[in-house]
Amino acid sequence: MSHPSASFSATIRVRLSNAPGSFAGLAKAIGDEGGLLGAIDLVRVEARHKVRDVTVAAGNEEHLHRIVEGVRAVEGVEILQVSDRTFLMHLGGKLEVHPKSPLKTRDDLSMAYTPGVARVCEAIADSRDAAWNLTIKQNTVAVVSDGTAVLGLGDIGPEAAMPVMEGKAVLFKEFGGIDAWPICLDTKDADEIVAIVKAIAPGFGGINLEDIAAPRCFEIERRLRDEIDIPVFHDDQHGTAIVTLAALVNALRIVGKSLEDVKIVISGVGAAGVAVTDVLLHAGARTIVGCDREGAVHRGRPGLSPVKAAYAERTNPEAEQGSADDVLAGADVFIGLSAPGAISVDGVRTMASDAIVFAMANPTPEVAPEEIEGLAAVVATGRSDYPNQINNVLAFPGVFRGALDVRASDITEGMKVAASHALASVIPPEELDPDHIIASVFNRDVAPAVASAVAAAAERDGVARRQLD
Amino acid sequence: MSHPSASFSATIRVRLSNAPGSFAGLAKAIGDEGGLLGAIDLVRVEARHKVRDVTVAAGNEEHLHRIVEGVRAVEGVEILQVSDRTFLMHLGGKLEVHPKSPLKTRDDLSMAYTPGVARVCEAIADSRDAAWNLTIKQNTVAVVSDGTAVLGLGDIGPEAAMPVMEGKAVLFKEFGGIDAWPICLDTKDADEIVAIVKAIAPGFGGINLEDIAAPRCFEIERRLRDEIDIPVFHDDQHGTAIVTLAALVNALRIVGKSLEDVKIVISGVGAAGVAVTDVLLHAGARTIVGCDREGAVHRGRPGLSPVKAAYAERTNPEAEQGSADDVLAGADVFIGLSAPGAISVDGVRTMASDAIVFAMANPTPEVAPEEIEGLAAVVATGRSDYPNQINNVLAFPGVFRGALDVRASDITEGMKVAASHALASVIPPEELDPDHIIASVFNRDVAPAVASAVAAAAERDGVARRQLD
Repeated sequence: MSHPSASFSATIRVRLSNAPGSFAGLAKAIGDEGGLLGAIDLVRVEARHKVRDVTVAAGNEEHLHRIVEGVRAVEGVEILQVSDRTFLMHLGGKLEVHPKSPLKTRDDLSMAYTPGVARVCEAIADSRDAAWNLTIKQNTVAVVSDGTAVLGLGDIGPEAAMPVMEGKAVLFKEFGGIDAWPICLDTKDADEIVAIVKAIAPGFGGINLEDIAAPRCFEIERRLRDEIDIPVFHDDQHGTAIVTLAALVNALRIVGKSLEDVKIVISGVGAAGVAVTDVLLHAGARTIVGCDREGAVHRGRPGLSPVKAAYAERTNPEAEQGSADDVLAGADVFIGLSAPGAISVDGVRTMASDAIVFAMANPTPEVAPEEIEGLAAVVATGRSDYPNQINNVLAFPGVFRGALDVRASDITEGMKVAASHALASVIPPEELDPDHIIASVFNRDVAPAVASAVAAAAERDGVARRQLD
Repeated sequence: MSHPSASFSATIRVRLSNAPGSFAGLAKAIGDEGGLLGAIDLVRVEARHKVRDVTVAAGNEEHLHRIVEGVRAVEGVEILQVSDRTFLMHLGGKLEVHPKSPLKTRDDLSMAYTPGVARVCEAIADSRDAAWNLTIKQNTVAVVSDGTAVLGLGDIGPEAAMPVMEGKAVLFKEFGGIDAWPICLDTKDADEIVAIVKAIAPGFGGINLEDIAAPRCFEIERRLRDEIDIPVFHDDQHGTAIVTLAALVNALRIVGKSLEDVKIVISGVGAAGVAVTDVLLHAGARTIVGCDREGAVHRGRPGLSPVKAAYAERTNPEAEQGSADDVLAGADVFIGLSAPGAISVDGVRTMASDAIVFAMANPTPEVAPEEIEGLAAVVATGRSDYPNQINNVLAFPGVFRGALDVRASDITEGMKVAASHALASVIPPEELDPDHIIASVFNRDVAPAVASAVAAAAERDGVARRQLD
């Protein structure tokens, strides 16, 4: 069970008798069950009672239920209502559309709509590029998913994927100032997804693909990058890759090793694993061994899919074989993008000195950080309750901000590596520490730094269509 | 040329000498050119000059240019800048996406996004209907266009259609409280458009089709209504039909005739003309003669398209032939949805007494209202500078508001007729007047009245999936 957190929290409305000790009894019941008592608000005062809202955090849903039952059993406490805070926050969804200027008079109407709007339409019909100035295109991103690989939940369908895509749009706005809209597709056909995204592209300045299962995601992204003239970015792949490289750059600084020289073992050769591998290779890494459930991916391994056969060609130079634990022997870096138990503590023990372990499976890491304390020099996870959280939120808002700012036609490997280095540099050298290799998601310097590096790289790579002011 | 209006207005920044009479000269120059002087703001005071922003309205773009040149010629006036107000308003587009609740702390993040969001996704995966409660679906409409029939501009493409669709989204919010998002499609293929709208439907509570050319629009709407479980509404057809019927109901009250008995001539058998015909038939009309460029559509006319052949079957009971002017003889009602000159003043002269003329071609009506003064008892147009403006804004916000409120699966003919009658009833009997047969677009009673009638009709017609509170 995770530590108690807001994501499993409830507001319990209770009627407490005025007899002494009734609140203490309630607080004790929560504590006894391992819950975390949060805000306490007075709702109203009755003759012999007070009605209060008590917020309590739990480690998971079942735990929350246990806490509520514990409270219910306290004498002098009556539960009036239990509101799950996460569900409350989602009622009616998380996004709204706002007009940028008011529409209160006939004059407003005649400019924003007919007849005035016709001249604006004509200007764009004369020169399609004018859409970048005169429509929302300059600041919008479509968050496109088919709902087949949502979080750790798998293929849950387009409706069930919406809360994630809405959340993504919230993050786009909050961290990148970008207007993103979720488009969840009721199809899993790669041809159809490509055709749909091509068709809707005119109204958007970028496409963020999200939670689309491998290997379909590779083909969809490749074809769209070829066929449309706005950036297409599968965040599960490249967002993860950018943040991982940034964290690794800083971790290597701490242990004084160079990317060119280290041996890296990656567990998980899905969408994220392949993208992390590619960005590391582009940044200079030479020895990467990727492992799936059957162990190391190597040239000649029977039954490799086309994606993995190509992967074997550009990785694992010594054609190492065996389990992830086997190939971990002598490795400098482990990057986990798979599942709990993918490697063992004993495996970590066989790594080179000053080992770096990124165990990013969510919510349960490949190996528990507390079990490898002392065995690894630097440890990172995907979780917020350990140090060094590898979180995509550190990448995608700045990457798209930079791409939109220069009206980029593509997001190149150069732009991704530039994003990584900018993200790594947000932590000044004097603050680098084994427990501080990557910025906090709430560090407001991150997105502007990433954006400006991405925009500059877009100009260098010849995909910028506008110079920054 | 139209009257001067905000849709062709500019803010002219001028440097005026302090010599007496320089402002009077500027005002006179604007007046001499027929421009309308609006707001005057002081920008700054210089040694011997004042810099002012002068807003001026013109009748069209060329007129605006002439006014500016007139101002430029005035002694003591230097033009520093001319800003077209309509273009200024469109810079960067007209819409923004706003998160409904702030995301400032790790707790917020853990509820709106991972890990908390996973439980919300699972709840929807368990029961797809929960998406109506837990996502934006309950209040969102996609405004879908292929850009082939935009305003009077025709096939201008998806980018150039965006300003209209953005404006539509602004109106949805302003009048219906609905979050609408523009989806402009880079395809004209009916099969593909149907497939795309089906695929994006999970994230929306309704689909507003817009500015799609006939006859493709008929097939697209029919197939989508069959194949998806949220309302699909081609506004150019049904929005126009609802407002036209409402205006006609009130006009008939004024002249004391009944819909069942009148002869109606409709000019224009495109998307709007067909829909207006159908809603009038559904409401009880019996004698409708539709005309296209070749004259009256009648059974057996050679070369009729399938849509028009079907149209001939359900209209023109006497199989009248001839031009629109010819069949106008003895008609009680003329409804123009075509082009200037479609009928003549002499044609109107042959109509029955107490004739009703709706000349809705935009911006230039089929016949000029001032030329038929005294010949028709009631005249309406599509323009805001004559009385009785037939404007779709009076229908679609309320129609979708009502449909979303009861989670309707369809918008039925019954819901459309209910919308018309509710819209007609917004004008109390004592305020009915030949110059006041339809509410103003800024009448805030309209959308709630239409919404509640539409919701009630949805329940009657068995397409509501939720009872109103």
